[in-house]
Amino acid sequence: MVLSAAMRSLEHQAWVEQQLIRIEKAIEQALPQGELTATRLFEALAYASLGGGKRIRALLCLASGESLGANPESCLQAAVALEMIHAYSLVHDDMPCMDNDVLRRGKPTVHIAFGEATAMLVGDGLQALAFEVLAGMHRTGLSARQCLQAVDVLARASGPRGMVGGQAIDLALIGEASSFVELEPLQKMHQLKTGALLQASVQLGLCCRASEALEPETDRLLNQYAKHLGLAFQVIDDVLDASATTDSLGKTAGKDQAQQKPTYVSLMGIGPARELAQSLHKQALDCLDQAAHGNRALGREGLEHLAGLADLIVLRQR
Amino acid sequence: MVLSAAMRSLEHQAWVEQQLIRIEKAIEQALPQGELTATRLFEALAYASLGGGKRIRALLCLASGESLGANPESCLQAAVALEMIHAYSLVHDDMPCMDNDVLRRGKPTVHIAFGEATAMLVGDGLQALAFEVLAGMHRTGLSARQCLQAVDVLARASGPRGMVGGQAIDLALIGEASSFVELEPLQKMHQLKTGALLQASVQLGLCCRASEALEPETDRLLNQYAKHLGLAFQVIDDVLDASATTDSLGKTAGKDQAQQKPTYVSLMGIGPARELAQSLHKQALDCLDQAAHGNRALGREGLEHLAGLADLIVLRQR
Repeated sequence: MVLSAAMRSLEHQAWVEQQLIRIEKAIEQALPQGELTATRLFEALAYASLGGGKRIRALLCLASGESLGANPESCLQAAVALEMIHAYSLVHDDMPCMDNDVLRRGKPTVHIAFGEATAMLVGDGLQALAFEVLAGMHRTGLSARQCLQAVDVLARASGPRGMVGGQAIDLALIGEASSFVELEPLQKMHQLKTGALLQASVQLGLCCRASEALEPETDRLLNQYAKHLGLAFQVIDDVLDASATTDSLGKTAGKDQAQQKPTYVSLMGIGPARELAQSLHKQALDCLDQAAHGNRALGREGLEHLAGLADLIVLRQR
Repeated sequence: MVLSAAMRSLEHQAWVEQQLIRIEKAIEQALPQGELTATRLFEALAYASLGGGKRIRALLCLASGESLGANPESCLQAAVALEMIHAYSLVHDDMPCMDNDVLRRGKPTVHIAFGEATAMLVGDGLQALAFEVLAGMHRTGLSARQCLQAVDVLARASGPRGMVGGQAIDLALIGEASSFVELEPLQKMHQLKTGALLQASVQLGLCCRASEALEPETDRLLNQYAKHLGLAFQVIDDVLDASATTDSLGKTAGKDQAQQKPTYVSLMGIGPARELAQSLHKQALDCLDQAAHGNRALGREGLEHLAGLADLIVLRQR
């Protein structure tokens, strides 16, 4: 049902490029403008959220919404909120008290460029903006109930039982010798730290669906797709950190080993980690096939884009 | 219409004590519990948000909701969200890259007790929890539209055009010799840094109102009350910082002068600052009188509690 990776790659690339422009513009419009004396904060907010990033979360949201006939404008707002949460987490993660990193997306990190205090406020402010954007989604015609569901999904995925909880587990694991860490707690940590927001990206697309009802089996399969993808994303991240260069990544490479962080590569070796990513990729695509088969009303283009994003995540070089 | 400060103080005190117990319990119930490996984060979330604080924001929300016949359970959830936002801002504010403070509510600050990385995550997590709590308010019978309005109000008040923006302006003002700072930018800074969330506290109570409609004049007067109160709150904060001891405050006293922060006291002198607070107090009470006079449907008890909170803020010793 779903095209092969090679066949869909060109079409998909064109779609991605088009969406990246829409996303960038929409984030820019959602950022606060001039007047205030807090000009420096506003500059830093733009620095942290514009001009870069793979926008995987935004793209997942747009594609999953498309598969359910959602209003593209509603999805775009949800996509902006997701990218704001992601950007805030990177800004705080890079700070000296966390990962202490100086390079992100090929540029100095926010605390290097604007100071630590402003970096802290940028993260805090982006999180608030994300929820402001979701609250404003009703202006795109979405029902208040659906908007509120989106707020609930994003808050849970990014809070202490989601992303923030994953980061806390990550903190606890740093420095633990790999031999003491099992694959399962590592997986749980990633499931929260990166997986929860990637799953939320697909779910926010579903929140924007055209009709109120959502077939439970479609819901389950698209969530399952997101879960496999979230895990694959992290496995590939570990592989790239161990094998790519800082230049090609746009962020510091080899950091995991330097920090003695347990990773898929340190626990499994690089070959088996690559195989795991391939297998998760296949499972994600299988979920899409099953969803397409079980629900003829699903938008074919949306599903193709979801498949294309799975390829993008697993085949990426940075 | 509204009782004198002396007459209402005893009754009011009983109401406050009762509400403090409700609020504490509700925050505790909204915090994430056990299971996760992120136990330390969960402990720190409780440490940061329970067992202290004046709960002014929560009380304002409960009282303003009461004046409009709101469901007390809805207001309680909104109150929890407000206190979570307030608690997160204190945790981040106390960190070394911001105010670098070691004492809060008479206890070591979160980064002293749990480390900086955890303190950062506690703040981030509390903000997400606040929005999760608002999204869950519909379970108390509030319409999705009203819940969504509450999300919008809280996100704006705490974001870059609200609290976070005020903190950024504050950062920019630190170290500026008082002689170069005018009263107006100082006022603008406080209006955002503290005033916005205090106003949002009253507004969230209004969001929970029993009927969908809200008389514009009542809305305006209660907002005006909140605005005067927010300013009075900050003037008193400055007076206390300059005149009280660390023991009585439960946080470091004399910090403003040590940091060469422009304050109402440094710009006006302590006597005129006290007079300004008295005048704002009177204006706030006048708004309540006018609101009661113009709208007979307003709950008298709610208004009395709002008046009592105005007394509490201006007459407080910490």
